[in-house]
Amino acid sequence: MLFRQLFDGESSTYTYLIAADVGREAVLIDPVKKNVSQYITLIEQLDLRLVAAMDTHLHADHVTALGELRVKSQCETMMGEQSLAQGVSVRFRDNDVLHFDGLKFTVMYTPGHTDDSYCFLMSDRVFTGDTLFIRGTGRTDFQHGSPDQQYDSLFKRLLCLPEKTFVYPGHDYNGMTVSTIGEEIKFNPRLQVKSREEYIALMNNLNLSKPKMMDVAVPANMCCGVGT
Amino acid sequence: MLFRQLFDGESSTYTYLIAADVGREAVLIDPVKKNVSQYITLIEQLDLRLVAAMDTHLHADHVTALGELRVKSQCETMMGEQSLAQGVSVRFRDNDVLHFDGLKFTVMYTPGHTDDSYCFLMSDRVFTGDTLFIRGTGRTDFQHGSPDQQYDSLFKRLLCLPEKTFVYPGHDYNGMTVSTIGEEIKFNPRLQVKSREEYIALMNNLNLSKPKMMDVAVPANMCCGVGT
Repeated sequence: MLFRQLFDGESSTYTYLIAADVGREAVLIDPVKKNVSQYITLIEQLDLRLVAAMDTHLHADHVTALGELRVKSQCETMMGEQSLAQGVSVRFRDNDVLHFDGLKFTVMYTPGHTDDSYCFLMSDRVFTGDTLFIRGTGRTDFQHGSPDQQYDSLFKRLLCLPEKTFVYPGHDYNGMTVSTIGEEIKFNPRLQVKSREEYIALMNNLNLSKPKMMDVAVPANMCCGVGT
Repeated sequence: MLFRQLFDGESSTYTYLIAADVGREAVLIDPVKKNVSQYITLIEQLDLRLVAAMDTHLHADHVTALGELRVKSQCETMMGEQSLAQGVSVRFRDNDVLHFDGLKFTVMYTPGHTDDSYCFLMSDRVFTGDTLFIRGTGRTDFQHGSPDQQYDSLFKRLLCLPEKTFVYPGHDYNGMTVSTIGEEIKFNPRLQVKSREEYIALMNNLNLSKPKMMDVAVPANMCCGVGT
């Protein structure tokens, strides 16, 4: 498998380029609009054909590249059925299986960070968006976030995956690139809570400031970043 | 193999933690002093025992963690035989083969960025330090750098590796994490030169500013970062 983890330093976003091999169809997960030319160059160099760009959720910290990639690459743009974004060509839902040329992703609906948050599971790895970070979890205090729902998404879905499953998050702010489900079960400080109530209280008392790009990113992402 | 690529955002340095598996002996390549507590925590969590910290060369843009790791983890500290740094416990040289618990690194002397620059080759990947970057090469205008020597290090050593060999560089400034030798042969703009003379002229006309941490990092790294 061809697998490239790409980092946007401004928003600390990880974008993933995945294909079965050089010369095959490719998928981008959580692409960032300002890096579109980088993606297109890399895709051309690797002799890939971009067939889908998918967002794990409607982002509040960067403008998505979905709309621009659809225009420039004629790829599908994919988000969850709950997404309010316009211009999405395919809407996936829980337990859908997405097949591309030699690639298979199982879709997991994991609300909590937002009400349109999803993860994508491959055989040995899961793309956890802003649901599960390395030693952290996504905030739940805007965009219909819910620590109650996130508790279920984490403890009843993601943490039930095999412990060796690699965790590839939507962001990292500490220079980490990958973890495993087993590591997060043991060492993620937010996952050491003893009850649902404790998790909800923890998340409701984070007192985080608003993402600096939120007022730009959310309206822009409502139309997949097109026209911004 | 357990493999973790860690990123220091301040200096855009990649540090690599490698072990045969959880519970085994581990090696760090190009660790950064200010991130020592992160490394030690991760090594403990993964049930590893750090046996060696090795630098690809004497860095000018960050303070090395070698000295502090030797104190805190009793690991070997390893640099090339040309290094002027004090406090190095093992000095490797060209074509040495370093064996750790299930890991094997072939040492490649690749002068050019500095006169003590090395790369470390594993079966499917090479750690290229500041000799070869993704779509770039390390500057050659200080610390006894030599574009003439770097030409040989690149064209007569690194680029002769199998094209599928993964390239893991010492830095990346553009959000890329990995490449391959084949990609760099084709798409690295500095490697498209037609002659040694053209490469030397290219490197001698980069007109780069001095690394901002150079006056701190180089003296500190002369004693493996201890006492700074």
